[in-house]
Amino acid sequence: MRALQTYRPETAEPLNQLANILLRGPSTLSPGERELIATFVSARNDCFFCQTIHGAVAAYHLGSGESIVEQIKRDADQAAVSPKLKALLEIAGKVQQGGKHVTEEAIAKARGAGATDLEIHDTVLIAAAFCMYNRYVDGLATWAPDDPAYYRERGEYLAREGYSSIR
Amino acid sequence: MRALQTYRPETAEPLNQLANILLRGPSTLSPGERELIATFVSARNDCFFCQTIHGAVAAYHLGSGESIVEQIKRDADQAAVSPKLKALLEIAGKVQQGGKHVTEEAIAKARGAGATDLEIHDTVLIAAAFCMYNRYVDGLATWAPDDPAYYRERGEYLAREGYSSIR
Repeated sequence: MRALQTYRPETAEPLNQLANILLRGPSTLSPGERELIATFVSARNDCFFCQTIHGAVAAYHLGSGESIVEQIKRDADQAAVSPKLKALLEIAGKVQQGGKHVTEEAIAKARGAGATDLEIHDTVLIAAAFCMYNRYVDGLATWAPDDPAYYRERGEYLAREGYSSIR
Repeated sequence: MRALQTYRPETAEPLNQLANILLRGPSTLSPGERELIATFVSARNDCFFCQTIHGAVAAYHLGSGESIVEQIKRDADQAAVSPKLKALLEIAGKVQQGGKHVTEEAIAKARGAGATDLEIHDTVLIAAAFCMYNRYVDGLATWAPDDPAYYRERGEYLAREGYSSIR
């Protein structure tokens, strides 16, 4: 991802700005919850780099180690997260399949679990955006490190610093 | 799309900036060629609004009416476009399916047809970005006009003005 950003700084700027607003900007969803949505979609898209780095950022924010991240990847419905986040992850999973897969029922379920319209909007856009980032990274066969320690360290850095001035 | 942008101006800004750099910024691919890539991916994602508006922008840029747009939607391989653009559309079609679908062969074919690395990079990112825009529009079931005249008029406006200050 950093190699892509160095290669094409003109596009890196809005890509980083979008990630920073969606994942770290003011929101009633915590950064940890938003990173879980990003991780969940990246896992569904089978993007090793994105699911690993955003899983590490989520784990850092949530302070729960990596267990919640593993749970939502395995079976989000059984994960130790709120009913609201489960309903938002269900919407994100539908967006991953395609925009038309999102049903009125899934939206109603999220509203019933207390999600606001803005939270639903941002969930759809986070999921859609990761369908872009995942394809960008894998479509250009970006080299990704395989050392778990890299992702933990980099995840902590991104959790602290955000995405607006990635280096 | 404009309703979404009014609803969430913070995210509209990087979304418009990204579209403007990819579709209208300096490039060795013409704006018409880039709009064809966007239209092709939006059609594969079955996004009525995006394929219609970007098809109209492409038709305006290409000055060819709507026939090339219909051709690339029906069978890009038989369309009256350059071998290079056909090879780039093949890459875009693979990105639409998922980042891992892009093959070394498809990249080599595009290079063989004269595509530069930057053109291949931008094709992958345009295709990936429209996998986001399409899901965003359809995931929130955005209302879209069905009058073809709307799209022609709006397409001409966007072709002339670009995407950086959409109103």
